[in-house]
Amino acid sequence: MVERVASSEVANRLNEWYDTIKRQDIKKAAIMKHDLQKAMDDMEEDQNVLLYYNLIDSRYKLLLEQYDESGTILESLKDQTERADTDNLLQYYYYFFSGLYEFNMNNFTHAIRLYHKAENHLTTIPDEIEHAEFHFQLAVAYQSIDQNFFSINHAEKALDIYLKQENYVSRIALTQMIIAANKLDLNQYLAAEKLYKKAILIAVDSNQTFIELLGYYNLGLCYEVQEKLELARDCFEKALDFDFPQENKKETYLRIKYMLGRVLFKMGFLQEGVKWFEDAVQLANETNDKIYQVKLEIIHAVYFDQKELSIDEGLKVLKEQSLWHDVEDLAFNAARFYKKEGFYQLASKYYEEGLNAQQKIPSLYEEVGSA
Amino acid sequence: MVERVASSEVANRLNEWYDTIKRQDIKKAAIMKHDLQKAMDDMEEDQNVLLYYNLIDSRYKLLLEQYDESGTILESLKDQTERADTDNLLQYYYYFFSGLYEFNMNNFTHAIRLYHKAENHLTTIPDEIEHAEFHFQLAVAYQSIDQNFFSINHAEKALDIYLKQENYVSRIALTQMIIAANKLDLNQYLAAEKLYKKAILIAVDSNQTFIELLGYYNLGLCYEVQEKLELARDCFEKALDFDFPQENKKETYLRIKYMLGRVLFKMGFLQEGVKWFEDAVQLANETNDKIYQVKLEIIHAVYFDQKELSIDEGLKVLKEQSLWHDVEDLAFNAARFYKKEGFYQLASKYYEEGLNAQQKIPSLYEEVGSA
Repeated sequence: MVERVASSEVANRLNEWYDTIKRQDIKKAAIMKHDLQKAMDDMEEDQNVLLYYNLIDSRYKLLLEQYDESGTILESLKDQTERADTDNLLQYYYYFFSGLYEFNMNNFTHAIRLYHKAENHLTTIPDEIEHAEFHFQLAVAYQSIDQNFFSINHAEKALDIYLKQENYVSRIALTQMIIAANKLDLNQYLAAEKLYKKAILIAVDSNQTFIELLGYYNLGLCYEVQEKLELARDCFEKALDFDFPQENKKETYLRIKYMLGRVLFKMGFLQEGVKWFEDAVQLANETNDKIYQVKLEIIHAVYFDQKELSIDEGLKVLKEQSLWHDVEDLAFNAARFYKKEGFYQLASKYYEEGLNAQQKIPSLYEEVGSA
Repeated sequence: MVERVASSEVANRLNEWYDTIKRQDIKKAAIMKHDLQKAMDDMEEDQNVLLYYNLIDSRYKLLLEQYDESGTILESLKDQTERADTDNLLQYYYYFFSGLYEFNMNNFTHAIRLYHKAENHLTTIPDEIEHAEFHFQLAVAYQSIDQNFFSINHAEKALDIYLKQENYVSRIALTQMIIAANKLDLNQYLAAEKLYKKAILIAVDSNQTFIELLGYYNLGLCYEVQEKLELARDCFEKALDFDFPQENKKETYLRIKYMLGRVLFKMGFLQEGVKWFEDAVQLANETNDKIYQVKLEIIHAVYFDQKELSIDEGLKVLKEQSLWHDVEDLAFNAARFYKKEGFYQLASKYYEEGLNAQQKIPSLYEEVGSA
């Protein structure tokens, strides 16, 4: 006779699986799922643990960006979860993950309703770290659709909790950076600078090199939009100065080198800039990053060739992919360069191009069936 | 011996006072307050009714825009209200009004926290209309600081309630218009148009002429930003066609005539536009509206004199008053006109001016002590 596995043991392993998913460790989460499936087969019958497994599985699918599958699982669990006698924690997971799912589907107001329901269940859940996780995820989500005050509100709640814990230093620094990103969106530059610097200090104290580097990169972006080019340059150079295995973070390095090159071009240091520009081109080719290839072509066309046609072709590619933030940024960048150089007709053209792109940005957040 | 007034009777009159305040009937609310103060003096002792009076008084001060006084009252009630045995409804009022107060003080994240607390108390309050009032106020507030998805979320909740009631037709139309304004902010033009048209139909059905007129004005604005000038013109003309006592709504008529003049100028119908332009100038003088006087001077300078100096002087006045939305709108309007006419240097200048103003907009929402 086969020995049955105790359901409480499986539940513990499900907790660990969820922790792994939250840490976004896809590789380990896949192995754990494989083992868990075996354990589930051998487990004594327990409807609650089965429901728990399915809920965490829906969250796992979100991590893998298999949204349809996640939605199908959640839909199948709806009736069972919404029964009044269902465990509070499981109801919380159901509404929270359903909120994450609907958010990913661009159903923002529906997601907000679900998050609200999840929060009502959250109040009775003792695990503080799960509270922080909830607020952290909402802060990230709301910042991405410019709902900045709500994002800050949740980020501060998450921060309060993480600050009372040990071993959450990197989350503390990341949460500060989310608040800073909101302040930057609100053009509150001083507040954003302060928070990025704080995040950097926290990272230094805890030897989190990559977070420190990210802090400098973001601080540099914050200076760049303010046209504090000297300071921006310093930050990007510092970010590149770290002794860090670039191989694992090529995408991040590509971004930093692109920005450093661009800032140097803007300052008029073409020869210095071209060194970083070429580095960035190489990284864009290695990672086969079509978007950055185009962005690099555009800035080259602006500062070197002054080839209107190349700029327009580059912008066209970005437009076809609805990268309106990038079109806006690069069109205004070109417009300002041409205005400074006295090419007013070209400047007017790219100002208008930037404004058109700006108008399109909210369409990125368009809700399904909202028209 | 003086006969004491029963506290229950005073409580009923406080309800009526609050209703009057919610309807923004300042004159009547002032008379009611005067009478209530006498009744309070003669009232049998009742701590709850006294607290209720003070809370509604803090709300009354908000209506009168006497924010400091409202804040002082709320501060003095803090300890008493937050005691666990305090009536749930009174706690709700305390948090809701404190939220409104903090919002007016630009402490948005603090206001959001207070609204959240109010909402927790609201769940146990049976009065549906108060639920709708709560959600309606939040929808208005969140729209004003571009937190559009949250605004829509609350507006939809308010709408669900109003739709089940009788005698709330004007609120239904207004709530539709709030949702429409959010859609417009999100550049979801089709959705906004649909909602404005819906609000107009509701107003027609219920003979709410002024709301119908407002609907056409807003629909016109919605067309104007899309450069659907013919349709915008129709809407503004319709809004002006109503048989309505213009004397009581001079500010609204000023806005509509300004927009109609501007649209006609943009279409090249200078002679037709100038008639409405002059009407608007007269209204701006009658109401002593300095801002509209300046805005009218600017559009005249753009379309008639092409006097750069007049435009710059006008924009300077608007900038001094931090009217960044207006500066942005009028600068881009000038830029586009000059681009079309082939004056590229001027166009570039005003594009840049518009972008600078745009950057300043979030500073209008800046939170106290956020830097």
